[in-house]
Amino acid sequence: MARNGRRNAGQQRRSGAVVQLPWRDVTNPYPPLEILDADQLEAIHDASMEILENLGIEFLGDDALDLLERGGATVDRASRVVRIDRGLVVEALKTAPSTVDLTPRNPAHRVTLGGNHINFSLVAGPPNVHDCVRGRRSGNYQDYCDLVRLAQSLNVIHCLGNQVVAPIELPAETRHLDCYLANVTYADRVFNCSAVGAERALDGIDIAAIARGQTRDDLIDSPAVLTIVNVNSPRRVDGPMGEGLIAMARQGQVVVVTPFTLMGAMTPVTLPAALAQQNAEALAGVVLTQLARPGAPVVYGAFTSNVDMKSGAPAFGTPENARSTLAGGQLARRYGLPYRSSNSSASNTVDAQAAYESQMTIWAAVMGHANLVYHGAGWMEGGLTASFEKIVLDAEMLQMMTEVLVPIQVDDDTLGLDAIREVGPGGHFFGAAHTLARYETAFYAPMLSDWRNFESWQEAGGRTATQRATDLWQKLLANYEAPPLDPAVAEALDAFVRRRKEEIARQAA
Amino acid sequence: MARNGRRNAGQQRRSGAVVQLPWRDVTNPYPPLEILDADQLEAIHDASMEILENLGIEFLGDDALDLLERGGATVDRASRVVRIDRGLVVEALKTAPSTVDLTPRNPAHRVTLGGNHINFSLVAGPPNVHDCVRGRRSGNYQDYCDLVRLAQSLNVIHCLGNQVVAPIELPAETRHLDCYLANVTYADRVFNCSAVGAERALDGIDIAAIARGQTRDDLIDSPAVLTIVNVNSPRRVDGPMGEGLIAMARQGQVVVVTPFTLMGAMTPVTLPAALAQQNAEALAGVVLTQLARPGAPVVYGAFTSNVDMKSGAPAFGTPENARSTLAGGQLARRYGLPYRSSNSSASNTVDAQAAYESQMTIWAAVMGHANLVYHGAGWMEGGLTASFEKIVLDAEMLQMMTEVLVPIQVDDDTLGLDAIREVGPGGHFFGAAHTLARYETAFYAPMLSDWRNFESWQEAGGRTATQRATDLWQKLLANYEAPPLDPAVAEALDAFVRRRKEEIARQAA
Repeated sequence: MARNGRRNAGQQRRSGAVVQLPWRDVTNPYPPLEILDADQLEAIHDASMEILENLGIEFLGDDALDLLERGGATVDRASRVVRIDRGLVVEALKTAPSTVDLTPRNPAHRVTLGGNHINFSLVAGPPNVHDCVRGRRSGNYQDYCDLVRLAQSLNVIHCLGNQVVAPIELPAETRHLDCYLANVTYADRVFNCSAVGAERALDGIDIAAIARGQTRDDLIDSPAVLTIVNVNSPRRVDGPMGEGLIAMARQGQVVVVTPFTLMGAMTPVTLPAALAQQNAEALAGVVLTQLARPGAPVVYGAFTSNVDMKSGAPAFGTPENARSTLAGGQLARRYGLPYRSSNSSASNTVDAQAAYESQMTIWAAVMGHANLVYHGAGWMEGGLTASFEKIVLDAEMLQMMTEVLVPIQVDDDTLGLDAIREVGPGGHFFGAAHTLARYETAFYAPMLSDWRNFESWQEAGGRTATQRATDLWQKLLANYEAPPLDPAVAEALDAFVRRRKEEIARQAA
Repeated sequence: MARNGRRNAGQQRRSGAVVQLPWRDVTNPYPPLEILDADQLEAIHDASMEILENLGIEFLGDDALDLLERGGATVDRASRVVRIDRGLVVEALKTAPSTVDLTPRNPAHRVTLGGNHINFSLVAGPPNVHDCVRGRRSGNYQDYCDLVRLAQSLNVIHCLGNQVVAPIELPAETRHLDCYLANVTYADRVFNCSAVGAERALDGIDIAAIARGQTRDDLIDSPAVLTIVNVNSPRRVDGPMGEGLIAMARQGQVVVVTPFTLMGAMTPVTLPAALAQQNAEALAGVVLTQLARPGAPVVYGAFTSNVDMKSGAPAFGTPENARSTLAGGQLARRYGLPYRSSNSSASNTVDAQAAYESQMTIWAAVMGHANLVYHGAGWMEGGLTASFEKIVLDAEMLQMMTEVLVPIQVDDDTLGLDAIREVGPGGHFFGAAHTLARYETAFYAPMLSDWRNFESWQEAGGRTATQRATDLWQKLLANYEAPPLDPAVAEALDAFVRRRKEEIARQAA
């Protein structure tokens, strides 16, 4: 049986004493859930073309304006508003690839964005960090490194987001270098660069290249890193973001254009309007990538949720967030682009709300055929805190989802009529030969869930899933083993970071 | 706008100060997720026919054996094993309706089982009850009544399961009467009867009839109640269950035939085998309903989860549970029968595990097009405890799901190009006319979720979703209003219960 073979090869692999699934290239064998009909999809597409052609998108950077103008867009230099004809979109989509492989320093951890592949990335960007032992605190480099170690310890986390937490004690101008260095030292997975300016993006590319024993240009046809380019919605691309996008695209690295659109604040309150605006903004970024380098890999990113209209507070994992994620997938597929969504929650603590909001976004991502679930593990408080316990909770939920996606094998062996014949009416199957041959690998073995009866659970302390998650991240970190790194490569990485810090200091002086 | 119209009519309706969605006939506008291909589905069907025709199902009751024999099945009186030819199944499916309406004493709370309708029922059957104020305790009548009041206070709970908690201080022979009386006194929704014997089923039908101002026979063509008939898997239907099934079917009431099949214990460990066995058992019950009364409404029930193979402990909300629920829906649709699944969790406390396990089953139910999600709210500890907090948590998750299922309206108004034009690049939509006209009803307003920022949340006590759920059920009960009941009907109900208790006492004497 393929299924048992796969499990025997991997499920019993342990990170210390923590049982988890093996690393997997997760694919979704089922059709996506289409919540827009064909006419609705075209109406939203048409509205977004209207926005691109007549209302335009503001690009604050000159490089972007130059590229777009040379590419045939109508550029108003005074207002910096660019109007993009739908013909330019069609041209860009001809060269944008539908699938891209990303290869980190460990090629066994290559990921594919596109098709039916789903990848989960670690949380990115919070200013704060939390765990139930030490409480909530500002981001710092020690926690940064521990969060990367934790991600490396969890097979279901395919890649690292950009800056898992902000190490605010480090100089702002060079902390991206420390972060990249931690990414390739403590993990061997694909990571995200910062797209705030070309330099930070190029530093990320260089570090990924050195970690692979290569140079920046070796990566052009074999991408290693990706970046999120957030549109400053509505309809504005900041200067540094545009520079980062262009630098990444020119080097053949993956750009994920993601309008961050909270309905009611950055878009109208109605979902079709939010989708039309999101679509126009995303496609504007897609066009820019293809003008920077035809064939550059680019991902359609969607992050449309809503605010609480009573307070203005951002809300995540809402029904509106789920519906926009499903519809966003339809738009990405319409254009033949890989699709990015998120695992998000507004909860301030790792509780039932954190779980049900995240589950809402995970199911929507899977049913919407997202290829990259950014913030896949550890995102709290609407992105303001990276949480050690939430990483464990998310990892369990993501593992469960990957098991839902394992195709069912139907054959004489799995139909088990002999076993059903063997066990008479009212009997039980515990001792049946069919059971004994398969029981070790038959079912998903949870990492976090506690299935004991109430009395045993109570006797063992009556601990919640969050309390058990505290045990688990501590155990995972205690058992963490750094992925092997050639000392010469480590030295080259250190030398690069040292040199770049010196250069940046000279530039500032 | 239909959407706003609907919301204006209902969302602002409050139960005291608790904002919730209005009562809805929830329908699923999207196609089901089919995880078996056509060949696999037929292979499972064929295996189940093999079980029915050659291995057989044991029926412990004589009435069932008589009916099945007269209907053409091969009955071995010594072993009580009945072999059912697939032709008998085909005949039964010709008369079993694909959709059935159930009408409680308040016709506004009519529910439809079948098609794309989804209904959520209150937890059923636990011996224990829990809340965070009073802790865990044995079931009792006071809690029974409060749980019914709580369900009546929540618009998303469409019907009551059988015996929301066991009132163990009441005499076992008559407590079903007290439970039914509470169901029709404190709520006005469809409820489930006990199918343990014909008398308890008939008592439930009588009480539902009296509550509607009618008699038992008035309900034959307008069903009011339903019952779960659990198969004692593998392949055994207990005597009282068979009697209950026959009594309900003869009176035209809804029978939900549900093999309770934990893979590894009551079925083989492989999912196709579990599905084949579940299917054979469910269809055997379906055949019996149609022999008892051709055209009797019957629902295909599925409750296939798995045990923990290390401990034998039952597990719920697992990936296997989700996959079996999705596949079970395909089987039910193959036979044109309404479909029942469950909202279940093995967690011993209302924590993140309770949320993610329940979400796994809710999404599977929705994507598998279940028409009845039994144990929809309040099921804990794998069914051993009814929880006040879990009812609130589940109600929130169910409400969110019903909002996901609201179809998207795409038109000029919702595409909002004027609003996008009005708000320039980098602006915000809070004050736009388009927003102001819609903000009150634009988004789902949560009952339980807390979207405040960390500081405000912490200042307000830093309470978890579970702690907030404690507030909510107390507030809902404090604000509970009994649904109006004609005093003459109330008197008739009391008289019936009094008379039946006397009869049962005489029978026992």
